[in-house]
Amino acid sequence: MEDFMATNGGDGPYSYKKNSKYQKEALDRAKFLLQTSIQEKLDIAEGPNTDTKQRVFRIADLGCSVGPNTFICVQTIIESVVLKYKFSGLEFNLPEFQVFFNDVTINDFNTLFKGLPLDRNYMVAAVPGSFHGQLFPKGSINLMHTSTSLQWLGKVPKEVTEKDSTAWNKGRISYSDSSYEVVKAFANQFQRDMVTFFRMRSLELAKGGLMVIVMPCREDGSLPSDSITIRVVECLAYALADMAKEGLIEEALVDSFNVPAYIPAVSELTEVVMENGNFTIEVLEKTFTPPLLNTSEQIQVCCQHMRAVMEGLVSKHFGSLIIDELFFGRYPKKLEEFSKTPYYASVKKVETLFLLVKRK
Amino acid sequence: MEDFMATNGGDGPYSYKKNSKYQKEALDRAKFLLQTSIQEKLDIAEGPNTDTKQRVFRIADLGCSVGPNTFICVQTIIESVVLKYKFSGLEFNLPEFQVFFNDVTINDFNTLFKGLPLDRNYMVAAVPGSFHGQLFPKGSINLMHTSTSLQWLGKVPKEVTEKDSTAWNKGRISYSDSSYEVVKAFANQFQRDMVTFFRMRSLELAKGGLMVIVMPCREDGSLPSDSITIRVVECLAYALADMAKEGLIEEALVDSFNVPAYIPAVSELTEVVMENGNFTIEVLEKTFTPPLLNTSEQIQVCCQHMRAVMEGLVSKHFGSLIIDELFFGRYPKKLEEFSKTPYYASVKKVETLFLLVKRK
Repeated sequence: MEDFMATNGGDGPYSYKKNSKYQKEALDRAKFLLQTSIQEKLDIAEGPNTDTKQRVFRIADLGCSVGPNTFICVQTIIESVVLKYKFSGLEFNLPEFQVFFNDVTINDFNTLFKGLPLDRNYMVAAVPGSFHGQLFPKGSINLMHTSTSLQWLGKVPKEVTEKDSTAWNKGRISYSDSSYEVVKAFANQFQRDMVTFFRMRSLELAKGGLMVIVMPCREDGSLPSDSITIRVVECLAYALADMAKEGLIEEALVDSFNVPAYIPAVSELTEVVMENGNFTIEVLEKTFTPPLLNTSEQIQVCCQHMRAVMEGLVSKHFGSLIIDELFFGRYPKKLEEFSKTPYYASVKKVETLFLLVKRK
Repeated sequence: MEDFMATNGGDGPYSYKKNSKYQKEALDRAKFLLQTSIQEKLDIAEGPNTDTKQRVFRIADLGCSVGPNTFICVQTIIESVVLKYKFSGLEFNLPEFQVFFNDVTINDFNTLFKGLPLDRNYMVAAVPGSFHGQLFPKGSINLMHTSTSLQWLGKVPKEVTEKDSTAWNKGRISYSDSSYEVVKAFANQFQRDMVTFFRMRSLELAKGGLMVIVMPCREDGSLPSDSITIRVVECLAYALADMAKEGLIEEALVDSFNVPAYIPAVSELTEVVMENGNFTIEVLEKTFTPPLLNTSEQIQVCCQHMRAVMEGLVSKHFGSLIIDELFFGRYPKKLEEFSKTPYYASVKKVETLFLLVKRK
């Protein structure tokens, strides 16, 4: 269902591209969290948790995109596992590592393969398909990782696209500015997706296996609309609305366009984990970066990123002819206007969740 | 080393494209051999041979190209394994199937993924890289398959490209018309490649695991040059030589171009298997098709196939500008001339080897 786009792994906290001071700090923090939590929580008394005879340690990165971020993550993970073996006096008994790079079928795996580090110390496999379905054999993965991907819904909730529904999301592309019914539809879709996601992962993870989830989130108790991330998405709707007014695109097309994304409160995720029952929550931390729409350069970077993430989706719906005008011309202006609102001034931080769960 | 081209899985005996009577028969025969040999030789008392707890049956197709032939093979393999389970009274105890599609890194895996059967009953992974190296964790694969790939050498033997070597292959692109030293250089490279190939596969195959090899071969006792397949390759050299004479390409470029392929006698393969010591030969059969250069239509088909296989290699060496003239204009003529030689008239059959080995 989500094969309409490849998830973008380029904006995770591991991103090396935006080397601002804050991003550098976020990167270091995320790497540190990944390292320390693997050190502390990985149970190698039982492990590599499956195949003790085969001695394979299998790692999966869900929503890998085309690299290089996924390679950096994988390297960090493997170094951490190796260290754990060394600290346990098992440095001469290391397993073989096999890494499964997963993304939707239309992801550019050819580019991923071309970018693979030549000096890697792991075997490579790519797995095409939605992580809302089963991707791996039962109990076969020892460590899963997913960064900046779980905010993508499996599909746009049907009711927000139906004219005669109370949840029709006319003129909007997200739920950030919409009625309670629309917000509820998106939140419910996220909840359904997460129920499936954790059910699938509970099948695939070996006993004692770890899963690291890094994703944008918001404060518990806050409203779904109270997320700067989703508001930045909605700014695209303002640009699209202008283009519709000027007759450049059809209004009905804007009405029927929705971005299948949802930024959850932390509890929306943890409740699903509890309900599933097959996992223990081992690490739950939030990292913070300041909102970065303060200069025209920052706005430019944000536009570039959003284009990378959204281009496929927008092209498919509106055709590719509007892309340049939308992302080069109109969207930056809307973001600039947004950056001057009292709401933007009130936002002190953008929150990212780091969650590590263990398969019972 | 072999990443200069993706192996072409399109010409194996499973090819559904050339549906001549003979090809149809070859196809049916190969499918039948695959089915019956799995039925007879797969040991499911021990299996799925690894991971009895996990119950995963892992299949690898080496040199998969972009499909659809690899999908047809995989389907045949899985149906045969399932039948074996059923006949053993284990139909309610089927394993999960995971299939690893392997080819060189520059293979178009995106196209492979787009063509995956939607109703498949297996999990998919793609593994980029040369099968002259280790591709999978130790003991992790239950059944391997490779069709029409092993005739590709890991590299052109160095000595045939060196001007001051006694094995310099001036003016030729294969060993079919060359000195003893050249033939020996190609044969030695094949032998070295096969030693590595079987060493790697012996690591990767689970105990009792099967490997099916389908590849072009020739009669034991025949000379290496006595293979119509390699002579068809050499016809390309005649076309290239003409182009060099006419000043369209440099003669030195023709001198330095060699096709890294070798058609072995069956014993050249089986000796390596014996020497390796980790396998038993379970099935060894040869299938035969008549040589198919009898009509201009057949010559056309042969040219198209050779273009598909060789275009990357030729373009890389000579540039892409000569491709159309070479494959549309000149090569068909050389093939036609070849089809009128006494040698061609003397060839009654083209041999394909079907070899099934079991990991001890």
